[in-house]
Amino acid sequence: MINQQIQIYNTLTRTKEKFAPLNPPFVGLYVCGPTVYSDVHLGNCRTFISFDLICRYLKFIGFKVRYVRNITDAGHLEGDRDEGDDKFAKKAKLEQVEPMEIVQKYTVGFHDVMRTFNTMPPSIEPTATGHICEQIEMTKKIIANGYAYVVNGTVYFDVEKYNKEFLYGQLTNRKLEELLEGTRELDGQDEKRGRLDFALWINAKPEHIMRWPSPWGWGFPGWHIECSAMSSKYLGDAIDIHGGGMDLQATHHTNEIAQSQACNHQAPVKYWMHTNMLTVNGVRMSKSAGNGFLPDELFTGNHPLLEKGYSPMAVRFFMMQTHYRSTLDFSNAALQAAEKGFERLMAAYNTLQNLTPSAASSFDLNQLKQKCYDAMNDDFNAPILLAQLFDGVKIINSVNDGKEKISAADLDEMQKLFSGFIFDVLGLAADSNASAANDDTLSTVMSLVIDIRKDAKTKKDFSTSDKIRDDLAKAKITLKDTKDGTEWKLEK
Amino acid sequence: MINQQIQIYNTLTRTKEKFAPLNPPFVGLYVCGPTVYSDVHLGNCRTFISFDLICRYLKFIGFKVRYVRNITDAGHLEGDRDEGDDKFAKKAKLEQVEPMEIVQKYTVGFHDVMRTFNTMPPSIEPTATGHICEQIEMTKKIIANGYAYVVNGTVYFDVEKYNKEFLYGQLTNRKLEELLEGTRELDGQDEKRGRLDFALWINAKPEHIMRWPSPWGWGFPGWHIECSAMSSKYLGDAIDIHGGGMDLQATHHTNEIAQSQACNHQAPVKYWMHTNMLTVNGVRMSKSAGNGFLPDELFTGNHPLLEKGYSPMAVRFFMMQTHYRSTLDFSNAALQAAEKGFERLMAAYNTLQNLTPSAASSFDLNQLKQKCYDAMNDDFNAPILLAQLFDGVKIINSVNDGKEKISAADLDEMQKLFSGFIFDVLGLAADSNASAANDDTLSTVMSLVIDIRKDAKTKKDFSTSDKIRDDLAKAKITLKDTKDGTEWKLEK
Repeated sequence: MINQQIQIYNTLTRTKEKFAPLNPPFVGLYVCGPTVYSDVHLGNCRTFISFDLICRYLKFIGFKVRYVRNITDAGHLEGDRDEGDDKFAKKAKLEQVEPMEIVQKYTVGFHDVMRTFNTMPPSIEPTATGHICEQIEMTKKIIANGYAYVVNGTVYFDVEKYNKEFLYGQLTNRKLEELLEGTRELDGQDEKRGRLDFALWINAKPEHIMRWPSPWGWGFPGWHIECSAMSSKYLGDAIDIHGGGMDLQATHHTNEIAQSQACNHQAPVKYWMHTNMLTVNGVRMSKSAGNGFLPDELFTGNHPLLEKGYSPMAVRFFMMQTHYRSTLDFSNAALQAAEKGFERLMAAYNTLQNLTPSAASSFDLNQLKQKCYDAMNDDFNAPILLAQLFDGVKIINSVNDGKEKISAADLDEMQKLFSGFIFDVLGLAADSNASAANDDTLSTVMSLVIDIRKDAKTKKDFSTSDKIRDDLAKAKITLKDTKDGTEWKLEK
Repeated sequence: MINQQIQIYNTLTRTKEKFAPLNPPFVGLYVCGPTVYSDVHLGNCRTFISFDLICRYLKFIGFKVRYVRNITDAGHLEGDRDEGDDKFAKKAKLEQVEPMEIVQKYTVGFHDVMRTFNTMPPSIEPTATGHICEQIEMTKKIIANGYAYVVNGTVYFDVEKYNKEFLYGQLTNRKLEELLEGTRELDGQDEKRGRLDFALWINAKPEHIMRWPSPWGWGFPGWHIECSAMSSKYLGDAIDIHGGGMDLQATHHTNEIAQSQACNHQAPVKYWMHTNMLTVNGVRMSKSAGNGFLPDELFTGNHPLLEKGYSPMAVRFFMMQTHYRSTLDFSNAALQAAEKGFERLMAAYNTLQNLTPSAASSFDLNQLKQKCYDAMNDDFNAPILLAQLFDGVKIINSVNDGKEKISAADLDEMQKLFSGFIFDVLGLAADSNASAANDDTLSTVMSLVIDIRKDAKTKKDFSTSDKIRDDLAKAKITLKDTKDGTEWKLEK
């Protein structure tokens, strides 16, 4: 049933490996999701759009994928310390800050952005606060196995003890000694035994609003245990693919590996995949650099660095033009080129629906088809896939111009190929901006207007043809006369 | 700041009471949400749309509402017993049914339907599985307070003991003796002490997939404790309003009151509000009667009982025409009447934007305005509000016809009144079906076409005017000549 062999670049081994899932045709895919205490940023979007592509392709070629992407909602907000505990305690619940209200706001916003980018919802979207029991159970096992210790209600993972048996820094290819060099000396105040030790469970100070009961007192989970607990619960102790942004490698994913290995006595992940960073005009995107625009700012153009707004599908197409392991550089020029490329691809797709077949094809469709699969089989290389599809675009336009021929069977096959790779795999869709232009009603009315204008020109009724041009300009519609007739275009 | 006095019908006292929240201007509102193991049904939608209206009005007049609506996702699915425990245990996680995958599917579907109906997301949307710790803590307290007992890992609430101090059946105005008559005798097999006792925590049998550790062994929460635990966590031990469908009164809400009172030594809810049932052509809507259509079937018309599809906003308008405490009867005739009413209201709203003001008004706007508030103040009576707005529609059309006059100040005020009550309170919006008609581009192009047609008619160029009529018919656009000019309409 699965008829393609994929190669995946595995961060753990720093090589491309043949993809062989643990329980074919099932694939377990876990991706670290957003922290919902602020608007989702574009770097996150790129990661989720990349794994949306990966998940879509795995399904497209026949795998049964369970895709788990978590929501980090344990934000550990603190109450207003100025008020003192007494005053705080006397406030009614409704008057107090409620972290879950913030969580809800940004979760809804995150889902809106994901829907706008046409990403499919994951199979399961578990939350950190929704898996406190599971995180406590895992912490208990790690203590029982001897890899963690409790100090004043906080549970620490013992990195040096773990490193005696396993390679702690394996994911980033660093030895413990190197890692230790990058940390400060512990002082007398520290509860931790080792400088790299990290918390599995944290004792809640009085000002902490989010807290749960545990065998070590009231507290909250550490920053890494949620993903280990949830991936294990829904995908098993050993999963196929774990993904996330490359900024998560050194600490979050390194600690995930250590926790899971210490708890379950096996390596948790077969293939680790990481997406690269964003830059703007060559400079790394960041809040502090002032060059970090939000998805909505990108769509509306409401940011000093943006000349105009770009449609969500043009942005998705833009992202697909860069491989997920390469830096993605935003610039107005590149976004505008992507807009044009996306339009050209969709125009060719529409042309493809109306081609007239011939007795035989003048080109080799199977070769084109295999190249599309080859591109995606090579570590999900979407930019190469797009290059292949644009070779197809040339052929489509040549057939339309009568310079190439396509058989009826190939036409059917090519329509399937294009709709499969454009919509199902790349996850592109007719643009909402473009949808007005594609809207049947408007198209039909515009055909009528163009007929009337042609008629008026023939009759030398220039007052009518001028009125048509002027009134259409008000509707931001421009006309272009070509040898094949008049085309119209809705400005964006 | 809050300038209106609301009366709420309280199920608990069976009277309309002045609404006086516990901590003004804050209002805590808890509504029992959907169980996400199947598509949301219309009865649920009606409940959530009703409380959306209630929440919107409370906010409109100045209250700060925290609206909590839960997701019941603890479905307690059982594994495939035919396979035997051994075989089941050997299966990889990915090969097994995963309840949270089902939960995710129907949660996404539920959110889609709610968005389609233009309901606002609640402030917090907590899940049952996300609050296992809280449910265990509450159960522990109820046991400690002496109102629950443990048998074989299951915790039961002791209804008869509770009833000695409190009125168990108060919400439905029934005595314990009456309630006992409706239950079967316990037999030797029963773990329960009393016939009305219900489970707070249930011991998991081997075939249960969803299970969590507890002081009483591995198990899962009972069917009522989640709402008590979550309303208390996010709104406090005493909340202002608790709502739900009236089918929840006798058991779920009656048990919620008992649990919360037994745990926190106070009545949990000041105002209990319940929405009434749905009927279809006078017969109660139910799956077994075959007359239970889903929201999507209602929108597409794809159900034997439906003559056609109805737009989400027409359905919302239709629901607003019946008070939430009355039975809502679906019929094609009533839905089509609602469609027309909604169109008439929106047309008048558009007319209102273009009225020409006079020196003084010929009618009393303040009176109309107060009647709108009075309607909503009287237990959120949306049908009366609509009647008042239609009185306003008559005035708008009369002003448009020159039979009534409106001052510039009143015009401004009336525009605010209409947009406030139509969009902010009733939660109506321009219909997506109607949106093509409202689309600026299409409107501008249609004005051009109508101008050309008028010109052609003047010139007796009937071939052009006929072509225009015929081509527009292809686009399902009809023209209507009135004394004020030509109107166009896009057929639905």
